[in-house]
Amino acid sequence: MTISLEIDEGLFRTYVFYTAVLVLKVLAMAPLTAKQRFRKMIFANPEDAKMNSKSKVKYDDPDIERVRRAHLNDLENIPFFIIVCFGYLLTNPDLHIATNLIRLFVASRIIHTIVYAVIVIPQPARGLSWFIGYGTTLYMALQVILSFV
Amino acid sequence: MTISLEIDEGLFRTYVFYTAVLVLKVLAMAPLTAKQRFRKMIFANPEDAKMNSKSKVKYDDPDIERVRRAHLNDLENIPFFIIVCFGYLLTNPDLHIATNLIRLFVASRIIHTIVYAVIVIPQPARGLSWFIGYGTTLYMALQVILSFV
Amino acid sequence: MTISLEIDEGLFRTYVFYTAVLVLKVLAMAPLTAKQRFRKMIFANPEDAKMNSKSKVKYDDPDIERVRRAHLNDLENIPFFIIVCFGYLLTNPDLHIATNLIRLFVASRIIHTIVYAVIVIPQPARGLSWFIGYGTTLYMALQVILSFV
Repeated sequence: MTISLEIDEGLFRTYVFYTAVLVLKVLAMAPLTAKQRFRKMIFANPEDAKMNSKSKVKYDDPDIERVRRAHLNDLENIPFFIIVCFGYLLTNPDLHIATNLIRLFVASRIIHTIVYAVIVIPQPARGLSWFIGYGTTLYMALQVILSFV
Repeated sequence: MTISLEIDEGLFRTYVFYTAVLVLKVLAMAPLTAKQRFRKMIFANPEDAKMNSKSKVKYDDPDIERVRRAHLNDLENIPFFIIVCFGYLLTNPDLHIATNLIRLFVASRIIHTIVYAVIVIPQPARGLSWFIGYGTTLYMALQVILSFV
Repeated sequence: MTISLEIDEGLFRTYVFYTAVLVLKVLAMAPLTAKQRFRKMIFANPEDAKMNSKSKVKYDDPDIERVRRAHLNDLENIPFFIIVCFGYLLTNPDLHIATNLIRLFVASRIIHTIVYAVIVIPQPARGLSWFIGYGTTLYMALQVILSFV
């Protein structure tokens, strides 16, 4: 690409590294869901339940639905952070601020999953971790809009 | 990257700007959902409902589920547009067509959210706005496939 | 961008081509869902059901929910593959391995949709196709983390 916009290479490497960490975090939701499904022997498809005579099809188990909500919350937040953060890197941000915002987002999402679906902790643990990730994404989106308008 | 594929810089800036607009639009779904949840005091998690004695856990409130469907529809459409539009920019498209297709997609998704979850308007308002975004993404995907095959 | 990281141009073209194929595959879920909805005349919104006197609003039709689960599974897997594969291309991978991993992922997701939502085949068809895509994404994420740490 012959684009004169510049990204600091170290910052870009940090970005790529943490996108992979975020992808691993989302991938971890599949075994977390499977663990609950096999613990309770509750599945979403008749062909899955057929594999074992004790299993059944159900859609309202609170432990399974909790993990699925945490997973959906990832889908609502993580891809959009990854997209807008790339634009943010093109706005020539301060390296320390940008690096720490990326780390803050990643930490907030890992904590969000833990307090939502691993060890359930009373509010505002989940709300706060969610809001930190949300606020980081919002800040970056506004920076991109101000820089590229 | 030493890739000889070229993107016009103005067009790339337009793309990055509108990806941030789309991310803001998706982020707006969270306060829209929260507004309905607090209006009705209906939550998805017992630890959320516990914060107030009048609130309860329920999964079938029509107003809340409507906003959630609009949100899910965003997840089904917006990231894939952003991905395939980047490929489309690499196909050396006409600048006016490309710029207007991006604007068309963004406008269609903003209208989709409004008629789906803010001021409910009878069909075909939602179907039409959805289809314009869908058709734009489809067109770009086909252009990428024809150019890169 | 003045980033000295390099991607082989042929490999990058392969990547962009297959991202568009994946986007087309996800877009195909909308007509698949619509086909089931119109076959059964079951819709998610009152304003949709109102278009025809024989239609009704329901959320638990097994054929419709099956297509929707396949669609959601795409959202849980495909964007994250596309994101992490871009990082993987920057790790200077073997061209044959990288090309074939991309093709493997794309094939696994097309097969996943077919055995999940078009012609339902007993397990482990779906589990296996899902796992191949999941494993590919996991492998790439680990490669990115090892290269960029």
